[in-house]
Amino acid sequence: MTPGRPLRVLCAPDKLRGALDGARAAAALAAGVRAAGGTAVEHPLADGGEGSREVVQAARGGRVVPVESVDALGRPATARYGLLDDGTAVVEAAEAVGLAALAAAERDVMRASSAGLAAPVLAAVRAGARRVVVFLGGTATMDGGTGLLAALGAGVRAADGRSLGGGGADLAHVASVDLAPARERLAGIDLTVAADVTSPLYGPAGAARVYGPQKGADPEAVEELDDGLRRLGPLLGVADAAGGGAAGGLGAALLALGARMVPGASLIGDLTRFGDRLAGADLCLTAEGKVDASTDTGKTVRAVVDACAGARVPCVVLGGTLTPDAHRLYDRGATAVLPIGPGPRSLDEALATAADDLTAAALAVCRLAALRPG
Amino acid sequence: MTPGRPLRVLCAPDKLRGALDGARAAAALAAGVRAAGGTAVEHPLADGGEGSREVVQAARGGRVVPVESVDALGRPATARYGLLDDGTAVVEAAEAVGLAALAAAERDVMRASSAGLAAPVLAAVRAGARRVVVFLGGTATMDGGTGLLAALGAGVRAADGRSLGGGGADLAHVASVDLAPARERLAGIDLTVAADVTSPLYGPAGAARVYGPQKGADPEAVEELDDGLRRLGPLLGVADAAGGGAAGGLGAALLALGARMVPGASLIGDLTRFGDRLAGADLCLTAEGKVDASTDTGKTVRAVVDACAGARVPCVVLGGTLTPDAHRLYDRGATAVLPIGPGPRSLDEALATAADDLTAAALAVCRLAALRPG
Repeated sequence: MTPGRPLRVLCAPDKLRGALDGARAAAALAAGVRAAGGTAVEHPLADGGEGSREVVQAARGGRVVPVESVDALGRPATARYGLLDDGTAVVEAAEAVGLAALAAAERDVMRASSAGLAAPVLAAVRAGARRVVVFLGGTATMDGGTGLLAALGAGVRAADGRSLGGGGADLAHVASVDLAPARERLAGIDLTVAADVTSPLYGPAGAARVYGPQKGADPEAVEELDDGLRRLGPLLGVADAAGGGAAGGLGAALLALGARMVPGASLIGDLTRFGDRLAGADLCLTAEGKVDASTDTGKTVRAVVDACAGARVPCVVLGGTLTPDAHRLYDRGATAVLPIGPGPRSLDEALATAADDLTAAALAVCRLAALRPG
Repeated sequence: MTPGRPLRVLCAPDKLRGALDGARAAAALAAGVRAAGGTAVEHPLADGGEGSREVVQAARGGRVVPVESVDALGRPATARYGLLDDGTAVVEAAEAVGLAALAAAERDVMRASSAGLAAPVLAAVRAGARRVVVFLGGTATMDGGTGLLAALGAGVRAADGRSLGGGGADLAHVASVDLAPARERLAGIDLTVAADVTSPLYGPAGAARVYGPQKGADPEAVEELDDGLRRLGPLLGVADAAGGGAAGGLGAALLALGARMVPGASLIGDLTRFGDRLAGADLCLTAEGKVDASTDTGKTVRAVVDACAGARVPCVVLGGTLTPDAHRLYDRGATAVLPIGPGPRSLDEALATAADDLTAAALAVCRLAALRPG
């Protein structure tokens, strides 16, 4: 075997949670590609949750517009949206009412409200956006989107006619929702919602039971919130739609406003024009922190593997942790599935060296892929 | 890129200490090669220490001959030698006076003797062997080879003329060594000694200081043994020769008998005819438990990388643990250096899954290597 011409390699990782965001992961892969003599294109991806707006704008550019708003606890805060050149606005719920912006002791799902998401959405509409994409995931809220709806002008009322402002504790009192004023403000807007989960609004797989605990809800609060979301579902007219439970029920509220819900990973692929970048690539490298059974059911890496298979571009998957399920990706057409790290060690050690490890793995992979049977 | 013809892959790992012997490691690699559609040849290697006789006979066949002898503590035990078809006998010191054969509580370097190595060597000579190869390493002894010398007929005496039988405690009393009777019994024999270390007999890098503790010597015993070995060196006429400290000083005793000392890894390569196997291979996979700075200074993997570079066969190194030094192998011509395991986890977990991990890594590597730039 002899080396061929330089490989053209598309570096398209998701974030490695707790270690690297998508851009840093792509840069680390690209460093390895270049060390092996290849040509690297950095194309970080996301699953529709945190980091999605940034990833879209890294690929598409456009303006980043700050908007005065409130955080999930109602305190003044700056949210933002991105405005792409084709008139599409991208808004990330986690950048408005995110969990990561709160100290651990501040997490309070009974109080947290999605109201702060309204300001960037309305600002984008006022700025002339014809399409608004909302990325869900990573919010501090469990209010079924009632905060957002009220802030958009919808009537969210208790049985005695009193207006409710949002917050998990209000769910027990919601008796009626008048969506018309909010729908009017978004009239003519193509509203798209990207979710990385398919949880319904309530029930055993619903928002409160699955995501309540990680947002700070104790078992009693989980039950109260699940009851409240079950009460809200029929009022929104979306009952048990898949993805309704995304972002503490924001999914259901946006569906009620006429939004189209799409899987986050494939939407990110479309918005970042991943397919165009794939044409002409000799090889695609993708990566995530943990490659497991959930990877096979719709995460970024699975979307990359599918797109590569369709485009007949070899695809190598690198995982910080691989479970045995990771190898299902071979059935989907992955060329190789490889661990990133150098062997037995603690999780902290693995996180600390993730960039070097990715670079090293990409270097190794590219040297291999550049071989041709003689 | 499109797949090429099936790859012909030589699977040539060292043992993965604590997990797999060389043969099992080669089989695990071969399973991955075959899963990727390649043709695998299993060629386990060793560094001249434990497992060396087995590896040589796996490649060369010949007879395995059991010999009644004694273990390092003088108890009746069966040693063995291998007799190859060309008249070469291979004897592994660890199979005669090995540390692994003793319970932890039995380890006693002051008492342990290399005498038990004499029986298989003499049996091989009696059986007509013209060349005797002794693999050092892995012994329970620290007697400077005095036990072996005495058992071969050499006069090992105290100042009062009393014969000493070997054992670390005797070193303090050795006043003269008459090698002639032992040399006579080995007359006409081409004696080759393979060592995987370059320690001299005594001193800061000597046998007692470096290897005493892992054989059970406490700090006081280490000093006593080092003094004894320093006393023995001039009596053997080999003083501070490199490798004299191998196997508790057996290296020095065999050098004194006229043996030629060679690095274990390259001798194993010669004896197993690794070069012949390399001709015609598209790719070579090698592996060891820990790839670190010591790999670059003469272990099996380094010898494989060198041989592959000479034969222009791509070589991929897989390590259970990779330290940053592992990447020096790229400078030696390695095609790729990859971790075996699936990420952060304990050493015990890594050891338990080593075979599956190797298979998975080999599969991935071969799929990559089978690509050809389009």
